[in-house]
Amino acid sequence: MLSSFLKSFSAIPSRKILVHGGGKLATTMAEKLGITQKMIDGRRITDDETLKVVTMVYAGYINKNIVASLQANECNAMGLSGADGNLIPARKRRDSKIDYGFAGDIDSSLIKVQNWKSLISAGIVPVICPITHDGRGQLLNTNADTIAQELAKALGREYNVTLVYVFEKAGVLLDADDDTSVIPSITAGYYQQLKSEQKIFAGMLPKLDNAFNALNNGVKRVIIGKAGQLSGLIEGKSGTMIVNE
Amino acid sequence: MLSSFLKSFSAIPSRKILVHGGGKLATTMAEKLGITQKMIDGRRITDDETLKVVTMVYAGYINKNIVASLQANECNAMGLSGADGNLIPARKRRDSKIDYGFAGDIDSSLIKVQNWKSLISAGIVPVICPITHDGRGQLLNTNADTIAQELAKALGREYNVTLVYVFEKAGVLLDADDDTSVIPSITAGYYQQLKSEQKIFAGMLPKLDNAFNALNNGVKRVIIGKAGQLSGLIEGKSGTMIVNE
Repeated sequence: MLSSFLKSFSAIPSRKILVHGGGKLATTMAEKLGITQKMIDGRRITDDETLKVVTMVYAGYINKNIVASLQANECNAMGLSGADGNLIPARKRRDSKIDYGFAGDIDSSLIKVQNWKSLISAGIVPVICPITHDGRGQLLNTNADTIAQELAKALGREYNVTLVYVFEKAGVLLDADDDTSVIPSITAGYYQQLKSEQKIFAGMLPKLDNAFNALNNGVKRVIIGKAGQLSGLIEGKSGTMIVNE
Repeated sequence: MLSSFLKSFSAIPSRKILVHGGGKLATTMAEKLGITQKMIDGRRITDDETLKVVTMVYAGYINKNIVASLQANECNAMGLSGADGNLIPARKRRDSKIDYGFAGDIDSSLIKVQNWKSLISAGIVPVICPITHDGRGQLLNTNADTIAQELAKALGREYNVTLVYVFEKAGVLLDADDDTSVIPSITAGYYQQLKSEQKIFAGMLPKLDNAFNALNNGVKRVIIGKAGQLSGLIEGKSGTMIVNE
């Protein structure tokens, strides 16, 4: 499954970046190490021990195995975190109600595109794990979808960026349990209509809000769909295309 | 200790690369996960589970924490394994007597200096963990000293390379228990004399053989000494300088 996705990813002819997560594997590893994971509203509370686990799992195990597979597919992958080359500066989340621990918030305006350009122009395909840093020596845990979004916005200042979100569903669905009910295209106006008619599964709303946020901040198009259909997504043959128009 | 070393490393004005290990921490982590570590002649046998642990510990935890610390010292560190950008190609060790598992042997002649030049010339300071790959999707575990040596030889084809080995002793000692018995300089001829007089602690011999191998293959000078004296080592004020002459 992952190996077929990585093969499709390698075949994409244009310049590209892969951002990956790994929450499930991190949870399994934390359990093996006897570290209790605390989640609030679906967000992991990153205490000291959890930060150690996610750094090992995301930046080590998952990232390097993806890189080795891409290299085997003749894709010149380079696995990096946001600390490496200061690619994604972050700051520790401050929240008056909840202590999220070592959670890193990021902002596209603070991402220096020049740091990315030197890699991209050298033909390197960055593979980014969701670990960032505060620039003062502290690693932080940042949501992978957020990294993809903020990075796409930052790179949109210099490049023609398509942001593709892949997950287990075939796209934005009218019926969450029916993969054939994919909405092929959603404009801002249509999104308002779908929301007012309550036709979209609530879990999709944050993803779509993020998609429009990206489109309103320099990203050319956003595509949402199934990991197993990557080439179809990019060709516009499957998934849901989000457009501002 | 590590933080003071990283501060000294950041202060080195020339282009530089850091190669790190992490065997002790990997052993601790393997114990926590209930994975038995098998060592033969001081070499770790890298079975499937051990490879997972060393990938997490070396490429994840240690590598990213070093990078974050260097970044805090305004050193533009980028943490990489040998799989990233295909920086260090390796092949699985074949040994008719011992199955070392996923141990990777490397050869300086197979390291493409061009891949390194694009990073170095962009002002990036590579921080290398001892994980390599076979180019066919398999990660491998390679000794950090070996990586430093082969990399120094490869880069010696294009750069004026000084190879510095830091460890817990103040240099090559006439008396293994006396840090004041440092031999300031060892030439090839003097090395033969010291060996025939059995004046050097046996554990140092492989390190010195490696040092002369590097010198005979394009490395300008090799320095051995204490991590806490890094600036002194580079200035020739402490440690042992190995020279071919």
